[in-house]
Amino acid sequence: MSRLFMFEKPLGMRDTLPELYEKKDRVRSNIAETMKLWGYQFIETPALEYFETVGEASAIDDAQLFKLLDKEGHTLVLRPEMTTPIARVAASKLLKEDIPIRLAYSANVFRAQEREGGRPAEFEQIGVEYINDSTISCDGEVIALLISSLKKAGLDEFQVSVGHVGFAQELFMQILGTNGRTTTLRKFLYEKNYVGYRESVQSFDLSMIDKQRLLKLLQLRGGEEVLSKALSIIENDKGKQAILELQELWRVIKDYGFEEYVKFDLSIVSHMSYYTGILFEVYAGNVGFPIGNGGRYSLIEKFGKKATATGFALRLDRLLEALGGKTLENEMHCIFFSQERRKEAFGLAQQFHSEGKKVVLQDITGVKDLDKFTKKFAGTTFLIGGRDSE
Amino acid sequence: MSRLFMFEKPLGMRDTLPELYEKKDRVRSNIAETMKLWGYQFIETPALEYFETVGEASAIDDAQLFKLLDKEGHTLVLRPEMTTPIARVAASKLLKEDIPIRLAYSANVFRAQEREGGRPAEFEQIGVEYINDSTISCDGEVIALLISSLKKAGLDEFQVSVGHVGFAQELFMQILGTNGRTTTLRKFLYEKNYVGYRESVQSFDLSMIDKQRLLKLLQLRGGEEVLSKALSIIENDKGKQAILELQELWRVIKDYGFEEYVKFDLSIVSHMSYYTGILFEVYAGNVGFPIGNGGRYSLIEKFGKKATATGFALRLDRLLEALGGKTLENEMHCIFFSQERRKEAFGLAQQFHSEGKKVVLQDITGVKDLDKFTKKFAGTTFLIGGRDSE
Repeated sequence: MSRLFMFEKPLGMRDTLPELYEKKDRVRSNIAETMKLWGYQFIETPALEYFETVGEASAIDDAQLFKLLDKEGHTLVLRPEMTTPIARVAASKLLKEDIPIRLAYSANVFRAQEREGGRPAEFEQIGVEYINDSTISCDGEVIALLISSLKKAGLDEFQVSVGHVGFAQELFMQILGTNGRTTTLRKFLYEKNYVGYRESVQSFDLSMIDKQRLLKLLQLRGGEEVLSKALSIIENDKGKQAILELQELWRVIKDYGFEEYVKFDLSIVSHMSYYTGILFEVYAGNVGFPIGNGGRYSLIEKFGKKATATGFALRLDRLLEALGGKTLENEMHCIFFSQERRKEAFGLAQQFHSEGKKVVLQDITGVKDLDKFTKKFAGTTFLIGGRDSE
Repeated sequence: MSRLFMFEKPLGMRDTLPELYEKKDRVRSNIAETMKLWGYQFIETPALEYFETVGEASAIDDAQLFKLLDKEGHTLVLRPEMTTPIARVAASKLLKEDIPIRLAYSANVFRAQEREGGRPAEFEQIGVEYINDSTISCDGEVIALLISSLKKAGLDEFQVSVGHVGFAQELFMQILGTNGRTTTLRKFLYEKNYVGYRESVQSFDLSMIDKQRLLKLLQLRGGEEVLSKALSIIENDKGKQAILELQELWRVIKDYGFEEYVKFDLSIVSHMSYYTGILFEVYAGNVGFPIGNGGRYSLIEKFGKKATATGFALRLDRLLEALGGKTLENEMHCIFFSQERRKEAFGLAQQFHSEGKKVVLQDITGVKDLDKFTKKFAGTTFLIGGRDSE
């Protein structure tokens, strides 16, 4: 084992210093406030779960799981996402009555990284799970809440790209059947490698018409007009049903007045195998990855209850990147005191605090470098020695 | 490996359901708000640290650490407390200037448990570290902030018991020297096993006078009068210095007007080896364990910087236990809608939300058991079919 420098942190682990913490805190509060107003209730689940329960049900790649052994030899995992633990809680405790449930969370999740300088191995997700309501209104509400949350967080420019698991799936089924070619195309779509997708389609032994239909999938991105185009290239009922659901979703989004934030993209697929219907990704500004994503899923069935759900998760680190780097204003005041006027200083600070103002109380004898310390504050008051000095 | 039931969680791991979450959230917010007003800045550190750095520097018993191996064969630990990670951050990033630093945190920490039904293995601590100010004002501020935080959290009856590492240490040194007998007595004090302490003292081969002095230590609990009694049984300078510091601390506490919350207890010792001066524990109501504790420590030196600090950590779970179980009022309203009046329903909900009221929007076709669902709300509005129905 190599000798570690005493300040080192494990791969992908980061400290959050005061300025970033405060920005994150504000964004989180604004989003959480919106979720609560919409009737979502926050819950918390443990950081550690059994691999056999939550670890296996989760769709996160095994190589990305942090694993450890407990004293009885069971494998534990640090939760890699929150949807699976919430499915466990919902199935075991909250779905005793057959009614819709709206849950929210804000939690750090853990994904082991391969290389230094890569992605964070611990990051915060804030999200919701709307459980046991199979209407399109449910999907629409989750997307509308996502949009409202981002607006409340101060994000002006973003786009929710909405697709449907069923469309590409049925199109591939119709043209290719269930085989390796379908897997290849899905993988290209997931990686958003459209060149690879095109080349692959061209290489298949298919009629010109079928190739055209497969290639057309990549053009099914844009406003609601995309949906009628999609209907024209799909032939089976399940595939058509997917489009009808998206049309209904569009009407819901319009009733919320959120059309400007939503585009359709029927080439969206997910590596999460549990999605069953509408799914979506959110993009903002120059951030190279989605800042959030979600969709309808059937994961709760793995925990023995028949209920579907729709949810979304936002990544706070990427959202902060999208919001950009405005420096927060320093509002901190400092009252320096000497022993003789300590009580007076405490009284003054208390008055400031009761008005909601941030004030540090500082025994002047505790500061070695007064110049440097004073620079940290927007203002200072000195209550030193016999009488007032400013 | 035994077969796990799909809902099981690892030993000591718990879910926090909505009602408890909300209570915890309110208490945390109130305390965090107080800390911020006093000029403390929140930071976050990773859940995973290297055993060789933070794990070894931490005073938590090795058997209580959750350990795992990373891909390079380094041992990682889930942080068992926050003081050591903050010492790492302070030493590596924040102490470049030689000035006082006030930091705060609210974070889950992890301590492996031996038995089912025992203590939680993951729990939240909220606390502060006031770094690089060696004045008694610093210790006094930390205790005053602790008291203010608890008052803001709504706790009325609690007591901060304040002692000093140096007093018992010097008393034992004077009478017993550094040997196994000192270790035995310290252990009894830490376990608050006063019977064991007395029996042990009686069994030692010591003069009657020395035995009396050792037994008197147990009576040094109460108001400021305790301090003059303590001075009368200690002979060496370091021991006297400890008492002089507590006398100065008492004057600081009086200037804050917080005398009613503070008692002295010179029999307090800690299993945390890094404490060097004043130390304290907070007790409330019928909670059998301290709800928080703190003191002055020298841990930062382990990370290569010469700076002492004083801090405290509150355990949110125990604080909530002390606060007791008032049920929160249900303020949630529900607007049921049918498709024809969806847009009207959305508009009404938006109006409620803009007034800060919690309102669920519910497509009536998404609810299977309407009776049970309706019972979850303080009030309901039905926007169904052609025209108004209430």
